Amino acid sequence: MLLRTAAATLAGVKRSNLVRDGDGWETVSSDRHFANTHVEVVTDQVRTPARSRPRAWTVVHRKAAVIIAPITPDGKIVLIRQERVPIRAAIWEMPSGQIDNLLEPDQKEIEAVAVRELREEAGYELAKGGELTALGHYFSSPGFSDEHGYFFLARPVKRCREASACDEGEAILDCREFGIEELRRMIAENEIRDANTLSMCARLAVRGFLSLDRH
Amino acid sequence: MLLRTAAATLAGVKRSNLVRDGDGWETVSSDRHFANTHVEVVTDQVRTPARSRPRAWTVVHRKAAVIIAPITPDGKIVLIRQERVPIRAAIWEMPSGQIDNLLEPDQKEIEAVAVRELREEAGYELAKGGELTALGHYFSSPGFSDEHGYFFLARPVKRCREASACDEGEAILDCREFGIEELRRMIAENEIRDANTLSMCARLAVRGFLSLDRH
Repeated sequence: MLLRTAAATLAGVKRSNLVRDGDGWETVSSDRHFANTHVEVVTDQVRTPARSRPRAWTVVHRKAAVIIAPITPDGKIVLIRQERVPIRAAIWEMPSGQIDNLLEPDQKEIEAVAVRELREEAGYELAKGGELTALGHYFSSPGFSDEHGYFFLARPVKRCREASACDEGEAILDCREFGIEELRRMIAENEIRDANTLSMCARLAVRGFLSLDRH
Repeated sequence: MLLRTAAATLAGVKRSNLVRDGDGWETVSSDRHFANTHVEVVTDQVRTPARSRPRAWTVVHRKAAVIIAPITPDGKIVLIRQERVPIRAAIWEMPSGQIDNLLEPDQKEIEAVAVRELREEAGYELAKGGELTALGHYFSSPGFSDEHGYFFLARPVKRCREASACDEGEAILDCREFGIEELRRMIAENEIRDANTLSMCARLAVRGFLSLDRH
């Protein structure tokens, strides 16, 4: 049931700013198994810098995402509570969203998505004098997917006057501000358990924006 | 191109210790689009606690994994450098591996996988008096996948006499011990950029096993 679509999928790989051939990586062929608007599953034959012969690998392509750490003037972190169908649970996490309809978004376009998701998911916006700080990116599961997320600190933030949070279509149930001690407890007790939020916290800590260490 | 395999996939969902129906979650139907030994792609119709009508969601099933933070007697962290085909890059990360052939593994079986991966991927083992400490679990991308990883601290560790690391089949290029300041720098500068390692670091920090804060 393989659909031979090498050219299309090669184009797909190149579509990303962060994942592309070069430096000894070469996509020899690509067979698409399945695609809808959310995921594309391919098996690629790939030459790698360390191996002479191509190796076959099944890859799930996903759109890139933004993850936002919204911090209030008094140092609280804004989290949303969201129903996540794939894990059959509602969890507290940082606002995030996918980058739609942009093939190779530049930094400005990615920041615009971050501002939009902060408003749509959490109902917050940058306060006067507030700014976004880019904190790099990460890969959610590089063993099988090219999915990656761009991290942004948004500080300080305030609630929008026309709060549009808890959007039913987005399955967002709640939105709250958490003190740093509460955040640490939630991470320690496995209540916070998604890669976006945990990975963002590690980046924030080493950059001096959040204290994770137990005192 | 839908294959109607509701019963099989429902069984798949139940196969996990952590992802299952109950508490208002109900899988009404499940259509499988694709499956090989690495991924299974389905579209589920799911009733959720917050919504009266079922919603359709495309889910990529993956095996659960273990992630190990190996710490030496002098407080260094052992990382491996591995070629990751889906992102066309080799990255420094903590040893990890999938839990194969176990439908509902208990804690002992999961720990055995952690010890095995520590040896196979890094070429390390627990030193005398060393022990594994379970640090909960996390979901790598709960918006589209049920993939989850169990975190273990392994401390103290030592290099195996018959070091079998840098396994070519595993695409592991290197294995090294890093001081905590070097680790912080690598996280800050986006050199460490995978969810396993970043998320583990957040858990380690709040539990008091690692200092992430910038001093």
